[in-house]
Amino acid sequence: MQGQNQQQAYDRGITIFSPDGRLYQVEYAREAVKRGTASIGVRTADGVVLAVDKRIRSPLMERSSVEKIHKADDHIGIASAGHVADARQLIDLARRQAQVNQLRYGEPVGVETLTKEITDYIQQYTQVGGARPFGVALIIGGIADGEPRLYETDPSGTPYEWKALAVGADRGDIRDYLEEHYDEGMELDAGVDLALEALASVAEDGLSPEGIGVATIDVETETFHELTDDEKAAHIESGDLAGSDSEDEDEDQPE
Amino acid sequence: MQGQNQQQAYDRGITIFSPDGRLYQVEYAREAVKRGTASIGVRTADGVVLAVDKRIRSPLMERSSVEKIHKADDHIGIASAGHVADARQLIDLARRQAQVNQLRYGEPVGVETLTKEITDYIQQYTQVGGARPFGVALIIGGIADGEPRLYETDPSGTPYEWKALAVGADRGDIRDYLEEHYDEGMELDAGVDLALEALASVAEDGLSPEGIGVATIDVETETFHELTDDEKAAHIESGDLAGSDSEDEDEDQPE
Amino acid sequence: MQGQNQQQAYDRGITIFSPDGRLYQVEYAREAVKRGTASIGVRTADGVVLAVDKRIRSPLMERSSVEKIHKADDHIGIASAGHVADARQLIDLARRQAQVNQLRYGEPVGVETLTKEITDYIQQYTQVGGARPFGVALIIGGIADGEPRLYETDPSGTPYEWKALAVGADRGDIRDYLEEHYDEGMELDAGVDLALEALASVAEDGLSPEGIGVATIDVETETFHELTDDEKAAHIESGDLAGSDSEDEDEDQPE
Amino acid sequence: MQGQNQQQAYDRGITIFSPDGRLYQVEYAREAVKRGTASIGVRTADGVVLAVDKRIRSPLMERSSVEKIHKADDHIGIASAGHVADARQLIDLARRQAQVNQLRYGEPVGVETLTKEITDYIQQYTQVGGARPFGVALIIGGIADGEPRLYETDPSGTPYEWKALAVGADRGDIRDYLEEHYDEGMELDAGVDLALEALASVAEDGLSPEGIGVATIDVETETFHELTDDEKAAHIESGDLAGSDSEDEDEDQPE
Amino acid sequence: MQGQNQQQAYDRGITIFSPDGRLYQVEYAREAVKRGTASIGVRTADGVVLAVDKRIRSPLMERSSVEKIHKADDHIGIASAGHVADARQLIDLARRQAQVNQLRYGEPVGVETLTKEITDYIQQYTQVGGARPFGVALIIGGIADGEPRLYETDPSGTPYEWKALAVGADRGDIRDYLEEHYDEGMELDAGVDLALEALASVAEDGLSPEGIGVATIDVETETFHELTDDEKAAHIESGDLAGSDSEDEDEDQPE
Amino acid sequence: MQGQNQQQAYDRGITIFSPDGRLYQVEYAREAVKRGTASIGVRTADGVVLAVDKRIRSPLMERSSVEKIHKADDHIGIASAGHVADARQLIDLARRQAQVNQLRYGEPVGVETLTKEITDYIQQYTQVGGARPFGVALIIGGIADGEPRLYETDPSGTPYEWKALAVGADRGDIRDYLEEHYDEGMELDAGVDLALEALASVAEDGLSPEGIGVATIDVETETFHELTDDEKAAHIESGDLAGSDSEDEDEDQPE
Amino acid sequence: MQGQNQQQAYDRGITIFSPDGRLYQVEYAREAVKRGTASIGVRTADGVVLAVDKRIRSPLMERSSVEKIHKADDHIGIASAGHVADARQLIDLARRQAQVNQLRYGEPVGVETLTKEITDYIQQYTQVGGARPFGVALIIGGIADGEPRLYETDPSGTPYEWKALAVGADRGDIRDYLEEHYDEGMELDAGVDLALEALASVAEDGLSPEGIGVATIDVETETFHELTDDEKAAHIESGDLAGSDSEDEDEDQPE
Repeated sequence: MQGQNQQQAYDRGITIFSPDGRLYQVEYAREAVKRGTASIGVRTADGVVLAVDKRIRSPLMERSSVEKIHKADDHIGIASAGHVADARQLIDLARRQAQVNQLRYGEPVGVETLTKEITDYIQQYTQVGGARPFGVALIIGGIADGEPRLYETDPSGTPYEWKALAVGADRGDIRDYLEEHYDEGMELDAGVDLALEALASVAEDGLSPEGIGVATIDVETETFHELTDDEKAAHIESGDLAGSDSEDEDEDQPE
Repeated sequence: MQGQNQQQAYDRGITIFSPDGRLYQVEYAREAVKRGTASIGVRTADGVVLAVDKRIRSPLMERSSVEKIHKADDHIGIASAGHVADARQLIDLARRQAQVNQLRYGEPVGVETLTKEITDYIQQYTQVGGARPFGVALIIGGIADGEPRLYETDPSGTPYEWKALAVGADRGDIRDYLEEHYDEGMELDAGVDLALEALASVAEDGLSPEGIGVATIDVETETFHELTDDEKAAHIESGDLAGSDSEDEDEDQPE
Repeated sequence: MQGQNQQQAYDRGITIFSPDGRLYQVEYAREAVKRGTASIGVRTADGVVLAVDKRIRSPLMERSSVEKIHKADDHIGIASAGHVADARQLIDLARRQAQVNQLRYGEPVGVETLTKEITDYIQQYTQVGGARPFGVALIIGGIADGEPRLYETDPSGTPYEWKALAVGADRGDIRDYLEEHYDEGMELDAGVDLALEALASVAEDGLSPEGIGVATIDVETETFHELTDDEKAAHIESGDLAGSDSEDEDEDQPE
Repeated sequence: MQGQNQQQAYDRGITIFSPDGRLYQVEYAREAVKRGTASIGVRTADGVVLAVDKRIRSPLMERSSVEKIHKADDHIGIASAGHVADARQLIDLARRQAQVNQLRYGEPVGVETLTKEITDYIQQYTQVGGARPFGVALIIGGIADGEPRLYETDPSGTPYEWKALAVGADRGDIRDYLEEHYDEGMELDAGVDLALEALASVAEDGLSPEGIGVATIDVETETFHELTDDEKAAHIESGDLAGSDSEDEDEDQPE
Repeated sequence: MQGQNQQQAYDRGITIFSPDGRLYQVEYAREAVKRGTASIGVRTADGVVLAVDKRIRSPLMERSSVEKIHKADDHIGIASAGHVADARQLIDLARRQAQVNQLRYGEPVGVETLTKEITDYIQQYTQVGGARPFGVALIIGGIADGEPRLYETDPSGTPYEWKALAVGADRGDIRDYLEEHYDEGMELDAGVDLALEALASVAEDGLSPEGIGVATIDVETETFHELTDDEKAAHIESGDLAGSDSEDEDEDQPE
Repeated sequence: MQGQNQQQAYDRGITIFSPDGRLYQVEYAREAVKRGTASIGVRTADGVVLAVDKRIRSPLMERSSVEKIHKADDHIGIASAGHVADARQLIDLARRQAQVNQLRYGEPVGVETLTKEITDYIQQYTQVGGARPFGVALIIGGIADGEPRLYETDPSGTPYEWKALAVGADRGDIRDYLEEHYDEGMELDAGVDLALEALASVAEDGLSPEGIGVATIDVETETFHELTDDEKAAHIESGDLAGSDSEDEDEDQPE
Repeated sequence: MQGQNQQQAYDRGITIFSPDGRLYQVEYAREAVKRGTASIGVRTADGVVLAVDKRIRSPLMERSSVEKIHKADDHIGIASAGHVADARQLIDLARRQAQVNQLRYGEPVGVETLTKEITDYIQQYTQVGGARPFGVALIIGGIADGEPRLYETDPSGTPYEWKALAVGADRGDIRDYLEEHYDEGMELDAGVDLALEALASVAEDGLSPEGIGVATIDVETETFHELTDDEKAAHIESGDLAGSDSEDEDEDQPE
């Protein structure tokens, strides 16, 4: 009873500290991230991989409209998980900032720079009243100074750099898989395989080319590339990750 | 008891996250959409179809004033469901944005572009305090680059693309009907038939030309066309969808 | 108990959605409309009729100060029901908008155009915080393009077009009467008779020329005309609608 | 218990609608009016009469500082009842508006025009948040186009025109007296007598020249005239309305 | 229980009306006035007297810093009771307004004019949200047009004119004394005596020159004069009002 | 139970009056002052003394960073007690105001003038919403017109002038000591001795040069002088006030 | 029960005083600091040392992205503990202020000056409504006028100067260690050793070069230097502080 009353007190106010120093609205926003389908990022020796679960609610929905992988700039891609409408706002911000940087400094924005501009923006929504935090996590991957870089933004506005990570549903299980199988020296193709294996490890019915999204940015071309269905099918086949391909319908999923 | 108390906490505040990461005000706005009569969209090989239930509260009300199908631009139509006064605001926004795009770029606005401008606007009402979300869902159909496109906006501000969809009352049953009978290669006339059959599948007393609204935009003319009563009657007759045509009076319906 | 608690939650906040998708403040504003005396609108083949119950609290009050019929423009009249002070704000808005339209476009404002400018204004008070909705319904009648038009605005900000309608107290009973006796082809004089009969059908003591207000706008002159006591008496006599003319005193009525 | 809880809900919020469509803050402001001593207005064939109870808390208080009759313009007087500090704001507004009108149009402001400018101002305080309604009622009397006019403003911002009226304490009893004895054709002097008789009808100890305030505006001079103690004494004597003249001390009365 | 709950409702909100038409925050501000030591004003035939209780908490406090009598202009003095910091704001306002008036009109501000400028300012703090009322009452005395004038401002923003009055602690008892002994024709010296006698009537230990403050403004010089300790001692002696002069220490007194 | 509920009501709102006319937030701010270590001011015939307890939480903390004595201008010093971060804001204000005064009038700011500018600033935080009061008391000492002056500001924004005073922890006991031993004619050195004796009277372990701060402003030089450790040691020794000098660690003390 | 209710009252409002003069939101922000891993500062005779625990949640996370030591200017470093996103805002502020100072005065900003600019900024978030306090503590170390200086900022906005200190988790235990072993005359290398020993004293599994961050600013070069893994390894080895180097995974840690 006490716990509940206490919690209510924080729920009512805008983002304020609880007696044990937590920000409940930020933690609830993290729950909103977990309600979204999983997104994965893998950094390899020669590029970064973004892979997402594009599960849909109905066969009549266009999978292409499930926007979970976004090109932020030629050399930077972003995968999201959580509240879709919130993600769109941050993706728009990322694109604008990338353009501004290009115009102002005549060179592509750094991956870390872009990440921190986004997290600074997110942080404001956790400290100043009159708005709620963003209910979304982003995986930002790209090439900077010839090196692959992979970052995460969370609803608190903290930037993290990762070798490989997962956000959204089943995040814990996927991370366990990644920790066990990740090898820092792996090549880009192996990174795609790892990402799909990790995704498959929590999928009940295996993977289908249409049901997933995959993008890569390699150090050579420094160019965002979204894999075609054929390319995805080849990886699924080679990894024996295909499933029964039954339509996934989950009315309760926000995405 | 706990559940109720908890819920109250969120009800009182403006749109904030619940402990399980949901935005109650957005979900309640979705309930407002369900309180509106149904609207349907069908994308065919050569155009898109919008069909709506124009049920009225009294025979003295002018059915033409039940605004559920709107022309947003020559090549784009919008069907709405939910809180009528809210829908009017978004339709006005859509028309302004279409004009602005024409003026600025000298060409008609894309269907996806327009949809996303609307959803970005909707999203603001779910994150910044001092206002409630929009209690309306829109089906936005039109022709872009010679292709028929069909989108949905929901109260969270998320854009979805569909082959065929329903919003408003009986949404679930109508979607089941659409999923079972939809064929991506169907022609526009068949699309109208499908939309009316789906509408009739949940109507107790069948359809009448005055009780429904139907509009099409075909790829050839790229022009919004609202069907006349005669055209509607022909479709109803050919589909054997006519009902007893008794006046529908439902005091509790918001529209 | 649950219902009561739940309701309180919505009462406290400014206009927000209830779990079943309703806007309580808007619905309570509709109750404010019902607390006002009845107003009626009838559209005939050659004009529109507005008729109102001008019941007063005391014989010492000037009936002329019970403002329920207003001239908005030469060709448009408005009857109101509900919170009088709120109605005055919307009538003022209507008059300003009519003038602005005349100045800007050099022609009289359309009835539908004016109605929608008013409903857009009303809608803002139901979505943005810091104010309550308008507790008033308007019947807007006039001539546009040579045709009689009759609209309703309600506290949600929705515009409706009607052949004949009632707002305010006894709305349901009056509408029943109108639905039974309305004939779309009736002439203006018959429209006045119908409106008065409908009004008399819910009046305990019959009608008196001073106790009612009647205005017409016919398609020929396109001019707002408020009936004199003699004109009203003639209609009352011909319809045998006169009552005992005892003073109506109702302390609790807001008007 | 339910009723109490329900009421609390409305008390807490700024002026919002109750489930039965009432505005509690406005109704409570009406109670504030009733807590003030009575003010009376009478319209006669050749002028208007304002009469007020100037009861004081202590013989040491200057009766002249009990401001209940105010000259708004040469041809317009205002009597108030209720929260004195609020009344002062509206009187100031009235005087400014009268001057503005004179400057702008080169002619004295109309009584009805002035009344409605005041009620429009009052209405804003009942709809927009961040302030409470005005706890005062005004009786506005004057000459317009050679005719005596008499208006009331109440805390909701509604204007009423009266032949004779009372606001403040004992309003009901005084109105009963006025309704019984008022005669529309009475001359100004008879109007003063009626007003004083009505005031005396609820005074326990009769009237004294110092204990009341009386002002007239006649159609001939169109000039606000406040009666001297001698003039008031003559009316009191002729009407046999004198009392024991014991000091009225009522600590709880706000005026 | 009901009463308490009800009261809480009003306590929480900013100044709003209670169901019986009262403004609790204003009434509580009046309590803040009563918590201050007493101040007295007396109007005589040839001037006004201000007298205050300058009780202090500790012999180490400088009595001169107990600001209860203030010179607002050459011809106007102000005595205060209640929340000291609030009083300072109003005194500053009074001084600024007196200067502004001198500059604008080339003549000293009228006592009534100044009083009403202050009460209008106070009233704003009782109607518009975001601030609390002033917890202070002022006695404003001075000469206008050769006549002594004496006014009171209270936390509601109402101006009163008095022959003699008291504000602050023991207000009721002092007023009883004043009512019994006041004589409108008394000279200024007798006015000082009356004020000190009234003050002594509620003082347990009699008066001392240091423990009180006295100021006069006479009609001849029209100049604010604060009595010296010798002058005060003479009055105390002549009236036999001296006490044991024990230090008054009252930790709980806000002043 | 009642008392507690009542209190909660006031706690929740921003600074508003309680039914007995108190401002709880201001009183709670006074508690914040008491949580700070003691500061003392003594006015002597030829100067003022400021003395403070510089207790620290850890031997690793630099005592010089315990800012309790501040130079506001050459001739004015300020000692503070309470919430340190709040004190810094007021000290900054004092310094700016002293500079502004020097620039504007070409002469040093008066001690009383400066005090009242600070208290006016503090008062705003107790009346206007959106902020909390300052949780700090200041002792402002200096020379004005050749005379030593000593003032206090408290969280209500009231200025007091003192001969000698204490603020912060043990305020009551120290004041008792001061009242007993203070002599208005004492010289500056005796004033320092008195201040240290008073401080020692509540210190469990006596005084050490590092554990206290002392500053003087004498009438001759009119210059703020902070005593060196040697100077302080001499006073401690001469007064036999030295203690065991054990490190004082009090985790709960805010300073 | 009482305690809990009382506490809730404060939790709900923005930062206001509790009855005992505390600011709960500030104290809860201090709890947020304790939830962060430890940071340590040590001032030696010839420079300052900053050392931090860079514990990570997963071996896949890049330790370099755990930002706990920041270069604010060439001669100033900052270590943080607590809410990471908040820390970033203050670090950005520090860098901007350092640049502004350089531009404006042509010389490096003082360590104390910079600290106080930051604490003044922090204080605003504890007094003015509409935002929550910063949930972070900073250790600011640098060289000013050839002297090493070491400061702390806490969530209340108070600046403290230290010889050696710890913030974040295990703060009390680390301080005990520092108090016991600190020697003001120690050289920079000994300072690094002390900081690491203190850190090791609370680490279950000893230290690893990657798991910690160390930076120094010495008086000679006045330059921020972050130790390489080799340099850190040498210190760990020489101090025998190495642990089993098992990955530290602590899902609940915010950093």
